[in-house]
Amino acid sequence: MNIQGRPYRTIWLNQDGRSVDIIDQRWLPHAFRVVTLGSVEDAAVAIRDMWVRGAPLIGVTAAYGVAMAMREDAGDAALDAAWEKLHETRPTAINLRWALDDMRKLLRPLSPAARAAAAYARAAEIADEDVALNRAIGAEGLAIIRRIAAGKKPGERVNILTHCNAGWLATVDWGTATAPIYLAMEEGLPVHVFVDETRPRNQGAHLTAWEMSNHGVPHTLIVDNAGGHMMQHGLVDMVIVGTDRTTARGDVCNKIGTYLKALAARDNGVPFYVALPSPTIDWTVDDGVKEIPIEERGGDEVSFVQGRDADGAIVRVRISPDASPVANPAFDVTPARLVTGLITERGVAEASREGLKALFPERG
Amino acid sequence: MNIQGRPYRTIWLNQDGRSVDIIDQRWLPHAFRVVTLGSVEDAAVAIRDMWVRGAPLIGVTAAYGVAMAMREDAGDAALDAAWEKLHETRPTAINLRWALDDMRKLLRPLSPAARAAAAYARAAEIADEDVALNRAIGAEGLAIIRRIAAGKKPGERVNILTHCNAGWLATVDWGTATAPIYLAMEEGLPVHVFVDETRPRNQGAHLTAWEMSNHGVPHTLIVDNAGGHMMQHGLVDMVIVGTDRTTARGDVCNKIGTYLKALAARDNGVPFYVALPSPTIDWTVDDGVKEIPIEERGGDEVSFVQGRDADGAIVRVRISPDASPVANPAFDVTPARLVTGLITERGVAEASREGLKALFPERG
Repeated sequence: MNIQGRPYRTIWLNQDGRSVDIIDQRWLPHAFRVVTLGSVEDAAVAIRDMWVRGAPLIGVTAAYGVAMAMREDAGDAALDAAWEKLHETRPTAINLRWALDDMRKLLRPLSPAARAAAAYARAAEIADEDVALNRAIGAEGLAIIRRIAAGKKPGERVNILTHCNAGWLATVDWGTATAPIYLAMEEGLPVHVFVDETRPRNQGAHLTAWEMSNHGVPHTLIVDNAGGHMMQHGLVDMVIVGTDRTTARGDVCNKIGTYLKALAARDNGVPFYVALPSPTIDWTVDDGVKEIPIEERGGDEVSFVQGRDADGAIVRVRISPDASPVANPAFDVTPARLVTGLITERGVAEASREGLKALFPERG
Repeated sequence: MNIQGRPYRTIWLNQDGRSVDIIDQRWLPHAFRVVTLGSVEDAAVAIRDMWVRGAPLIGVTAAYGVAMAMREDAGDAALDAAWEKLHETRPTAINLRWALDDMRKLLRPLSPAARAAAAYARAAEIADEDVALNRAIGAEGLAIIRRIAAGKKPGERVNILTHCNAGWLATVDWGTATAPIYLAMEEGLPVHVFVDETRPRNQGAHLTAWEMSNHGVPHTLIVDNAGGHMMQHGLVDMVIVGTDRTTARGDVCNKIGTYLKALAARDNGVPFYVALPSPTIDWTVDDGVKEIPIEERGGDEVSFVQGRDADGAIVRVRISPDASPVANPAFDVTPARLVTGLITERGVAEASREGLKALFPERG
């Protein structure tokens, strides 16, 4: 997508054919910084300290991390060490593990001399696969936006609410929840996006609003509390969110607060869609509320807020009493009954075991 | 309620019998500052710039403002000028207008020589009436907490979720939504409060958490997004919120985001109560969603967050892109169908025209 008129991905191989550049997302929206990762150690730091985030982007960064490790030392021990070093950065990230396993399975049978080249080629392929996946999700979601637009007066805007950042910054390009929006815009449909700020980490205010702003998508930032009121007053035509994990029956685990928006959508007859690449479906889990363990993150994410001060410095400020305990569950589960449809790369599925099986019969 | 072991009200007459002291709420929770208001001008600034906030507290501050004006000049013109000066500080605040009208109606027939003394006496009375009203609400709400506690194992905590600050800082003492909690604590019931941070102005993080912390109420601060997840997992026994305006049929206008918590409460079988002094019932309005105009406040409340920086200074930081537009509706309306009960000073009413009429037959 575009940043000030110039197209970017979130990660790309440099002309030296060895190092990769990434957008250092820690400083957005206040500063746009591109950083070069030259080693597996650099890649590990970038993942661990969240210079990059979003499951697909973490996976690609890890794949390039393995490639950079192979350039230094392509032995079996080095391959295992790279796997370990990268895996421990975000041990619960499913795409990270998947990418690392995929790389090791490919490289292990090869002679050490062949590993580095193969690793770079595979990392590039994983990146391209992610782009293609999101573009396919985008095309499916676009059809929904087209239908909503067709039911409106010419030029009347289609209002889409999204939560967190399932945008191109979380992937290599396009994003999951945002791909339909970017495609609709390319097609000239009058879309407008309500961006939930998404406390506590403010990915909506920091990242989604910045994406929209740079690519020229009309949008309005709102606090997480406001979406229900907007829906009550007919200001939202559809909700699209991403997901970290979707169960075999269509329960959706996503950023904390998603469930509240799904309830408001249901109460007001607003369609609630979830955009998901099929690898995020966990076919081993059924009841999301009962079975998915929810990560409890540090209280400082709630007690402190990062922003730009009057001098232009990016600082953290405390907003709560020092003595007040904090709870910080990072995700919640939206039951399938509240989900209008699951937008996958193969089509839009009903949020049910039958709906998912129809699109992915090989998983039945 | 207590601040570091010492009981306070939010406003009190000084020993000079003329000036009043208030808690300057702008710096909470980071700094506890008491400020003396010595004139009607001081009172107007304190209300306008939100050194004090909360409908009942604004009303009492205005009443003392009129009293201080009468001490300077007790003529008819000065009385009208005080009314105007104070009214224009927060023109939509219902309690402000009510207190000013009440004072003028009392003072106008009196001789100017008698006005100052009568004004101070009436201001003190309005303050005491507010305390008595909240204490009565507290007693009614306490009965509900007692029932929930009785259904639990001995010592098992009663978890109460609240949104915004309908606490003692919004009133003279006790608060509305918090009065039942403080009374339950005095009675030794094991209450625990989940405090929504309440974006965008963070009244939960800044004020409610601070109140709880100082009075020794066990509590946990959470982001507004987390409440639904908490309820899904059985961690919330009841919700109590305040209200700015309740309609004749029981629709509840309150801080933005209240509606989302009511939806989550309904979806999970958690009772949802609203604590309200009967003067906040607007008997002229029926359908809250359709009829109540919602104040749209400045976007800076969303784009900027106030907190304490690493040097201990209280500063504002920007959290969103400069180019991103912001919408900031300040309130939403929770339909009566989602409200378990309205806790008033006369008892707990069903949220319906019939329920309210039964308690307030004179308003039928």
